[in-house]
Amino acid sequence: MPETVNEPGTGFVSLTTDFGAAYTSICAGVIYRAAPQARVLVLSDEVPKYAIVAGAMLLRQALPYFPVGIHVGIVDPGVGTPRRPIVLVTGRGDLLIGPDNGLLRPAADRLDGLRAAYLLENPDYRLSEVSTTFHGRDIFAPAAGHLASGVPVTALGPPVDPGSLRDCDIPNPLVGEGVLTISVLYVDEFGSAILSGEERHLRAAFGPIDYGTGLALTWDGGLNRVPLTYQKTFGSVPVGEPLLFRDSSGWLGVAVNQGSAAEQFGIGTAAMVTLSQR
Amino acid sequence: MPETVNEPGTGFVSLTTDFGAAYTSICAGVIYRAAPQARVLVLSDEVPKYAIVAGAMLLRQALPYFPVGIHVGIVDPGVGTPRRPIVLVTGRGDLLIGPDNGLLRPAADRLDGLRAAYLLENPDYRLSEVSTTFHGRDIFAPAAGHLASGVPVTALGPPVDPGSLRDCDIPNPLVGEGVLTISVLYVDEFGSAILSGEERHLRAAFGPIDYGTGLALTWDGGLNRVPLTYQKTFGSVPVGEPLLFRDSSGWLGVAVNQGSAAEQFGIGTAAMVTLSQR
Amino acid sequence: MPETVNEPGTGFVSLTTDFGAAYTSICAGVIYRAAPQARVLVLSDEVPKYAIVAGAMLLRQALPYFPVGIHVGIVDPGVGTPRRPIVLVTGRGDLLIGPDNGLLRPAADRLDGLRAAYLLENPDYRLSEVSTTFHGRDIFAPAAGHLASGVPVTALGPPVDPGSLRDCDIPNPLVGEGVLTISVLYVDEFGSAILSGEERHLRAAFGPIDYGTGLALTWDGGLNRVPLTYQKTFGSVPVGEPLLFRDSSGWLGVAVNQGSAAEQFGIGTAAMVTLSQR
Repeated sequence: MPETVNEPGTGFVSLTTDFGAAYTSICAGVIYRAAPQARVLVLSDEVPKYAIVAGAMLLRQALPYFPVGIHVGIVDPGVGTPRRPIVLVTGRGDLLIGPDNGLLRPAADRLDGLRAAYLLENPDYRLSEVSTTFHGRDIFAPAAGHLASGVPVTALGPPVDPGSLRDCDIPNPLVGEGVLTISVLYVDEFGSAILSGEERHLRAAFGPIDYGTGLALTWDGGLNRVPLTYQKTFGSVPVGEPLLFRDSSGWLGVAVNQGSAAEQFGIGTAAMVTLSQR
Repeated sequence: MPETVNEPGTGFVSLTTDFGAAYTSICAGVIYRAAPQARVLVLSDEVPKYAIVAGAMLLRQALPYFPVGIHVGIVDPGVGTPRRPIVLVTGRGDLLIGPDNGLLRPAADRLDGLRAAYLLENPDYRLSEVSTTFHGRDIFAPAAGHLASGVPVTALGPPVDPGSLRDCDIPNPLVGEGVLTISVLYVDEFGSAILSGEERHLRAAFGPIDYGTGLALTWDGGLNRVPLTYQKTFGSVPVGEPLLFRDSSGWLGVAVNQGSAAEQFGIGTAAMVTLSQR
Repeated sequence: MPETVNEPGTGFVSLTTDFGAAYTSICAGVIYRAAPQARVLVLSDEVPKYAIVAGAMLLRQALPYFPVGIHVGIVDPGVGTPRRPIVLVTGRGDLLIGPDNGLLRPAADRLDGLRAAYLLENPDYRLSEVSTTFHGRDIFAPAAGHLASGVPVTALGPPVDPGSLRDCDIPNPLVGEGVLTISVLYVDEFGSAILSGEERHLRAAFGPIDYGTGLALTWDGGLNRVPLTYQKTFGSVPVGEPLLFRDSSGWLGVAVNQGSAAEQFGIGTAAMVTLSQR
């Protein structure tokens, strides 16, 4: 198990938050103070506020494309309450830093698995004054900075039993004969509704399925219904037309070519939708 | 003609997309994996969605102020359809990467001209799996990363006849005697409507024109009309008052001092407006 | 007094603007052209437009957490008018660059005080052509870039009498017996209304105050009234409930747990609110 992931002072650090630009950048500043040679990349400062699942899915999708490094994820509605600040060690050698609320677990699974976890308890690697509302700046960023500067992960605090860590609640799709009931995980930047299921669930419900196959999307208990087709990409349908597609992280998604499915159909995060044969 | 623009591993790379923060940053991560020492600067992740002309104008305006480098531009409504992924070599020594849809051409013209173009076809410089919806991550970013790490541009794919490349459709203003009909290229971050014409068009329509000259702006076929003056800068008129100005990239623009002309007058991208003598 | 804050070519530079992504990034590009080895961090490109006080408060809050460096702040409604472009030298060794409109002063006070100030007048350290609307690109960013590359601050222009610099207008809270009248400095990214007062003002009005103490918030001349409690952190009250808290920069703030106080109560920047005993 690697305890430090980079040469001291050359660490790659990413930041993912629901903070907006300024508070995220304050975290980056704290990291640079501890590790002037680190390279800090903001994955997103635009995670929907308090949306742990959306943040977890983004980290899971993005981190495999990032260099092995130190990845800070903060979507933390429980800041200042007793939820635990942690660092996870992944099989790939990454260190994932954030609150123990399920945000980091799905990414760890994608990065060759969770190998170990530690509490961020050592006051030497926190700011000298810890506020009650901004642990990003006072606990998580200092931990990242010190790790990037070469501090071993075991120095940050006592080990945590991985079995005690909270996981992220991703709903399973309901597969029937010719029908797939599934929830919206999150709405992406293009307004596509990313669904909590993959192509294999589509095949389980409908058998082998080709591009161009027509399906019906219903929601609000069947009150709303729109026909769409399973397609390879947005441009396979005319501008303004809906489609079902496999998104770049493997999830099924409902999109509108050059439009916003979420706006056009009024389906948002956590909505339940049903796909069925026409 | 320079084939690599930087020492291996020290390349300056910029990213311009309509992706929002997260998907743009995934592209940056892919670049850092291929070129850990590169310096990646996001010019914008906020180009209006699918707005090729707005993206092209931003690249044309900004890149002359950037270091010579590798510049990735992605506004790509045709992703996954047969439009070609390309790299352009500019007279200044930059490499411009993106889809062949006109997005990159105006910038190349500003960077001492287009010298050569290549297809991004070599699978060695793509991700091993190429999705149908995220060529930024799977094709464009890997190309940029490999170029930044020292791969010569000729290795990426066969040359493309520059004459076959698509150009960007920038409408010409219509110059009359004392009247200038002109379209809105895009709305900038301050809500100013940037017009598809320059001061020389103003002079062609109105003769020599001084700061303070009064004009009338009409739109919606003359249904709406507002008087304004040609001014050096926003603060030359009272707060809330409109003005015509020369924007920092040389285009004419309609602004409101400390306000948003686009909101106040309801003129957006592609609107046609007319300037005439009062 | 330090005249350069870093080894030549290794400077840490931050940017804070109300420009949005693209225009801010153009400034970063200009800095990299002058100082290729600089490290540029955008603190925020989302300062509310023309909001000098909000920008000043952000700089004051954030810069103490940043490395000593060159910090560019641009919220500049007076661009192109005779307001002065300046650089301030702080006691900590930072160089603060921007317009002389009060934006930079509160931060200088926090960074161990203002030690000296200079006009950005030397044309050698501006772009060769200076526009009337984009001094960020043409004056402020080149100054930052040249300072980061090792140019001494005294080379940028003549010294300015610190007594002649404009300060930022932060309203004082009005402390009464059991009543505190106070204005909203700005609304933060989470929709919390950050107030122009600190815990000491609360104690001056109400005596010793414990977490859990109930108060009443009134605004619009008493037309609106909501009970709330003084709390350690958001999660101390149920989701959707309001609280008064000490924000991470020391200001009092009104928040709603996992909600937006500004939206829920309709109080925005510069609103006056009153806290009183229930």
